[in-house]
Amino acid sequence: MVALAGMTLAANAQQALGPGTGLVSPEINPDHSVTFRYVNPKAKTVQVTGDFLPTRPVEVDLGDRKMVYDAPGVADLKEGRDGVWTYTSAPLKGELYSYSFLVDGKKAMDPSNIYQNRDVATWTNIFTLSAEPGDLGWYYQVNDVRHGTLSHVWYDSPTLSSYRRLTIYLPPGYEDSIDRYPVLYLLHGSGGDEDAWSDLGRTAQIMDNLIAEGYAKPMIVVMPNGVWFNQAAPGAAVNMFQPTMANSRSQSTKEIEDSFTDVMNFVEKHYHVAKGSGNTAVAGLSMGGRQSGMLSLRHPRKFGYVGLFSGVPAVEGNEDALAELFAAKPKLYWIACGKADGVMANSRKLKDYCDAMGYPAELYESAGGHIWRNWRLYLTIFAQRIFQESAVHVTPTVLPDDAE
Amino acid sequence: MVALAGMTLAANAQQALGPGTGLVSPEINPDHSVTFRYVNPKAKTVQVTGDFLPTRPVEVDLGDRKMVYDAPGVADLKEGRDGVWTYTSAPLKGELYSYSFLVDGKKAMDPSNIYQNRDVATWTNIFTLSAEPGDLGWYYQVNDVRHGTLSHVWYDSPTLSSYRRLTIYLPPGYEDSIDRYPVLYLLHGSGGDEDAWSDLGRTAQIMDNLIAEGYAKPMIVVMPNGVWFNQAAPGAAVNMFQPTMANSRSQSTKEIEDSFTDVMNFVEKHYHVAKGSGNTAVAGLSMGGRQSGMLSLRHPRKFGYVGLFSGVPAVEGNEDALAELFAAKPKLYWIACGKADGVMANSRKLKDYCDAMGYPAELYESAGGHIWRNWRLYLTIFAQRIFQESAVHVTPTVLPDDAE
Repeated sequence: MVALAGMTLAANAQQALGPGTGLVSPEINPDHSVTFRYVNPKAKTVQVTGDFLPTRPVEVDLGDRKMVYDAPGVADLKEGRDGVWTYTSAPLKGELYSYSFLVDGKKAMDPSNIYQNRDVATWTNIFTLSAEPGDLGWYYQVNDVRHGTLSHVWYDSPTLSSYRRLTIYLPPGYEDSIDRYPVLYLLHGSGGDEDAWSDLGRTAQIMDNLIAEGYAKPMIVVMPNGVWFNQAAPGAAVNMFQPTMANSRSQSTKEIEDSFTDVMNFVEKHYHVAKGSGNTAVAGLSMGGRQSGMLSLRHPRKFGYVGLFSGVPAVEGNEDALAELFAAKPKLYWIACGKADGVMANSRKLKDYCDAMGYPAELYESAGGHIWRNWRLYLTIFAQRIFQESAVHVTPTVLPDDAE
Repeated sequence: MVALAGMTLAANAQQALGPGTGLVSPEINPDHSVTFRYVNPKAKTVQVTGDFLPTRPVEVDLGDRKMVYDAPGVADLKEGRDGVWTYTSAPLKGELYSYSFLVDGKKAMDPSNIYQNRDVATWTNIFTLSAEPGDLGWYYQVNDVRHGTLSHVWYDSPTLSSYRRLTIYLPPGYEDSIDRYPVLYLLHGSGGDEDAWSDLGRTAQIMDNLIAEGYAKPMIVVMPNGVWFNQAAPGAAVNMFQPTMANSRSQSTKEIEDSFTDVMNFVEKHYHVAKGSGNTAVAGLSMGGRQSGMLSLRHPRKFGYVGLFSGVPAVEGNEDALAELFAAKPKLYWIACGKADGVMANSRKLKDYCDAMGYPAELYESAGGHIWRNWRLYLTIFAQRIFQESAVHVTPTVLPDDAE
């Protein structure tokens, strides 16, 4: 096997034979600090950047509005024997973390860690850390519980004149049951696709774990592609396109709103779905939050539960629709946003308007900005609030407050 | 958007905002040569290594046997203005290709290309190239045809006392039909998992495209996890384990054979499956080829079609079982192997034995070694040969013969 390991760095995908770095990285230590290792005798500097380090908010001008992003921290690795660079973090709380190395300032993946995630057009390494049983990080990892089915399915959208792809989560036991299940429609953000919530948002893990503990009702989660001119995610779509972030064309909500009945018709035809607003929820992040808000206004009696994560529809021009929606008495209208997020201003504006009009909207404020850590958290909370009346068992008390 | 792009290199997964390299790489040129670009003003050398370059066979001693791998070629990029390094390949034939950069000898991903594949523990960039409509590369890419469903499902294995994960392909129209479909059980190699055939083997694309052209019958393809002590692939399993290549424990076929009825029972219970040997096939690559061969011997009347891709069971000790299998008159017993593959000796030995005994086995010999290019090719041919009697329309005539 020594000969095999030696081939690895030069091997291509067809001859991949193991990590072969001889290093463990990242290594989670007993005190929940994490050690990163990287071998490169020629490098002048090796750094690690990731969301386990304290962040700093950076404001970005998007033209029509400003948005605040949390810029990741950077830490220096120190060179030891044989060109092995090392850095050990402070003890970390339970979460899913992402990181990359910077070798002489250039991004490099950790060759000792096969775990990676793509967000829009950027790959990073990831690791999960569960500080103690039952904490928030526990819900993001795969545990020894029953698992649901995750399917990539194509549906016909007559409105958009194309077949389109969606990802659907079916809870454990679905295939062996004739029960009808409630449905959460869960929409991604700008630059994302139908794989974003399952890959970055850990939907299947969060749902498996909440259901296993009895904190969420078994439900179907439907994650369609929310960019109206893309049929599917990169790799599932014709042509090898490179995804990009926000632009006004992809951020348009109208086409997705117009065609959303195609999604719902497909789901209600092909799965055993419990109907009625008490069994139907819509939620989304950023662009998907705006879309969710607009869909709830278009179909005021369809969705009994509405989740607007770091993205809200405008109040202006929607006053009548909001009146109609709240006249239908939705069971939950839940706005969530990070305190450092540029979307907070509009989130508060919507909440203030609802308060002034006597509409029972909730505003949940978390630390941090426009980041996946918040969206996983919001899903974890929202999933406990829908299709049932019960306490929220899993709360974000373990989250660091560094970005407050 | 300029400000956003400038943040990209330092951004972590939660703030990923686009590729931001300003480069197109790889770029497929009109003559089907491919240009690779990489920016790094500080690098002394930048190279590209991948399977689009001529390979050379390298023999590896595995102790009990020797195996030949095709080592990838390496080409130098040249530095131009602003630290942009460039290399243009010779014109390429239609295929799925993989590559990595070597920057001062260290592996680096192409930051301009989000498309990546993991094989065991090695990530590489990939691209597909379709030289002309209908060629082999066309079958590996996503085309504008109807697409099947790809599901990740957990089943109960009483034999192994655990829930385990499998990937299942359902052909286009399955959900809207009450037809019963034939089933191909498709097994991965050592170090692989239940995602290997769909990710690296392009199962969904090959089946979608063959079915769309009428060259394969609509069928269900079941891709279980063939490592008996792993419940699931990395990312779906408890703990963040790093997969490794062959070892005698993982290569054991007995536990998978013992527990395979659990897989078949699950599939036959939960999907509308056409039964009988004329509707049931088993095939696999390398370790999965050996497993497929052993399963066909254990269940001589179960599988009417058997595909042994770069992996075969031993003749010795299986003479009686082979006699029983061929007494049941399988419709196809198809051995496939690369001429440069160390498994060829055993493949020929099995074929010679079958010839001597009058058993109608076929041996298909391709160029090259123990590589995914061959396994995609074998699946493409095998899928046309099963559940029907018709000509094979898609053949490997476009493959380069460089490794012959």
